[in-house]
Amino acid sequence: MEEKKQENNISTLEKKEAAVDLEKFGETLYHQMEQGEFPWIKMPSRSTENICYSPELRQYILGERKVKRSTRNIRHIRPFTQLVWTAFFAHQLSTQRKTSTLRDVYYSAQAYNMSFKDQSESDNVITDLETVIGLPREDFNVFPEERSAIFGDLTIEYTVPGYEGRQMNLTSHPDGLMIGPALTYSEFVKTSADKVIAIEKGGMFTRFIEENVHKKYNALLVLTAGQAPRSTRHFIRRLNKELELPVCILTDADPWGMHIAMVIISGSANAAHLRGLTTADAKWSGVWATDITDYKLPSDPLTEIDMKRLHELHRDPRYKDELWQREIKTFMKIRKKAELEAFSRYGLTYIVDEYLPAKLEAIK
Amino acid sequence: MEEKKQENNISTLEKKEAAVDLEKFGETLYHQMEQGEFPWIKMPSRSTENICYSPELRQYILGERKVKRSTRNIRHIRPFTQLVWTAFFAHQLSTQRKTSTLRDVYYSAQAYNMSFKDQSESDNVITDLETVIGLPREDFNVFPEERSAIFGDLTIEYTVPGYEGRQMNLTSHPDGLMIGPALTYSEFVKTSADKVIAIEKGGMFTRFIEENVHKKYNALLVLTAGQAPRSTRHFIRRLNKELELPVCILTDADPWGMHIAMVIISGSANAAHLRGLTTADAKWSGVWATDITDYKLPSDPLTEIDMKRLHELHRDPRYKDELWQREIKTFMKIRKKAELEAFSRYGLTYIVDEYLPAKLEAIK
Repeated sequence: MEEKKQENNISTLEKKEAAVDLEKFGETLYHQMEQGEFPWIKMPSRSTENICYSPELRQYILGERKVKRSTRNIRHIRPFTQLVWTAFFAHQLSTQRKTSTLRDVYYSAQAYNMSFKDQSESDNVITDLETVIGLPREDFNVFPEERSAIFGDLTIEYTVPGYEGRQMNLTSHPDGLMIGPALTYSEFVKTSADKVIAIEKGGMFTRFIEENVHKKYNALLVLTAGQAPRSTRHFIRRLNKELELPVCILTDADPWGMHIAMVIISGSANAAHLRGLTTADAKWSGVWATDITDYKLPSDPLTEIDMKRLHELHRDPRYKDELWQREIKTFMKIRKKAELEAFSRYGLTYIVDEYLPAKLEAIK
Repeated sequence: MEEKKQENNISTLEKKEAAVDLEKFGETLYHQMEQGEFPWIKMPSRSTENICYSPELRQYILGERKVKRSTRNIRHIRPFTQLVWTAFFAHQLSTQRKTSTLRDVYYSAQAYNMSFKDQSESDNVITDLETVIGLPREDFNVFPEERSAIFGDLTIEYTVPGYEGRQMNLTSHPDGLMIGPALTYSEFVKTSADKVIAIEKGGMFTRFIEENVHKKYNALLVLTAGQAPRSTRHFIRRLNKELELPVCILTDADPWGMHIAMVIISGSANAAHLRGLTTADAKWSGVWATDITDYKLPSDPLTEIDMKRLHELHRDPRYKDELWQREIKTFMKIRKKAELEAFSRYGLTYIVDEYLPAKLEAIK
């Protein structure tokens, strides 16, 4: 079951699929019992040794090792029961079209006398379910707390209850529209944009809107608000795959900004059991370490923690490509970091008038 | 100048006012120089000893002590020049209708060869300017990074460039609309809501929308996303004053959640130099410490840090009223905390179907 969803097209169909897949999971268990077997499951191991980087898929994946959980084994009965309850609850969420959070699932269990020691236990079982079903938890309506936002000429059509068939143009609200469940499940109707610009910071996102970047550069603007929530990464992928829009990412020039871009591009190790969250062709357009020198940006010295992080990234297989290695080395050499706002030393609109077009030209 | 803006009505007029007030400030300096004086200013001291709680205004205010800064004093020339530059830059932002952030102002100074040692120095000068002018920095277009959101039947009319005269109903996007500069400056056109419910957490905000709380309880829903940004506190006040809507606030049951509510109601000590950010009549509706017992909520033990914080709040003049004292004492006695999601132990919609109406009844 876990080998599914490798294809590129992600759409709202997946939500219906999630319910169907959860039902199939239940049927498998019933079938096993009808055969006189103790119900069991087999799924890829998520232990560190079984996580490897796939250069083809350009993301972390799980290796060949499997784990089997069988209710024949008394030690497995508790996690197995928790998994089955979680599947049941996820199915309820999907069919009743209610959304939830990880925290909420933990507490909801108590309504069913299903006990989890703490939230990390229930979070882990939800990840088990993702692994078994092969879909991210957002597909069965478990959403992150965090919300990011989007702005630009894209008309979407809602599919959530009460809004079915209603359309919305994402330039309607000049502060940006939150990327929550409704936008995640929406269908794309039309767009005049020919690219996506993802931005780390709220102030800069507003600057870009005010300076009409969406019009001047035909772009959809996405605010990641720091590390992009998974649903936002999924949404960026949809913009890239369904609308065939190239994606560029603007972050602060430091190892943390770099990694915000990398997680959008290549995902994280703890989502190695999932597909459909990465945008392998997205580009980190800046702010680069080399930009600090090239643009003579005001900067701060890298801290010990920054340097330690750079050494980790240096060894990380996702960072093997030339650009990343060059930037990591430059950071280590100049020992400086800078922020997106640093361009304001040349005036508030310099980043939009000068830096952005140069960067967009470079990634063509 | 600092004694202004005590009145209740806050509207988009203030933005024009800000530019006018900044010009008046400049004129004062010119006038002083024409009189042959070294330019000087006098403003209330913001030192801790001069911050006191006003039971009438139900917020912290600055006392009688003033500080004078004169360019006759060589040690004052640097901060004075910084203040005048900041006023000039704020005026540019206001008249050109561009927004900025604290960070951005710091870097922008470099475009004018105006040097700040670090951002805390420029932040402090911006606070000086707020004190001199008597308006919060949002009124001269310096906005926070953070964004919160709103949902519900309120039609607003934009005043920002490119959107002048356009109307928007805040139920249009079921994930919520970001509260950024555009919403902050908008005019209220009409609403069918008769109350505002402010909620600390994104997941719960989405639950309330999905469960049609806005319709069932005629409410506007505001997501504070943790501690409410100043522009959101200002916006909540506008909803309360201009539309005469009562405001209730739902947070986690812990000292931090309590204080999220308190800052919306009574403001913070470091905004003692400002008016117009508080909503003195807003109510903290829960989750209370007493609710943990009354509703038998799943809870966690209070940590040492939580307990320390409770002792601080116990002595805080904003917390002198009966409700707050009772809840602080209950927290200290039961030594437990609980989250909004804890109600999910009774089912996902219990909080909306049972808890919320009981609370709304209680605050009538």
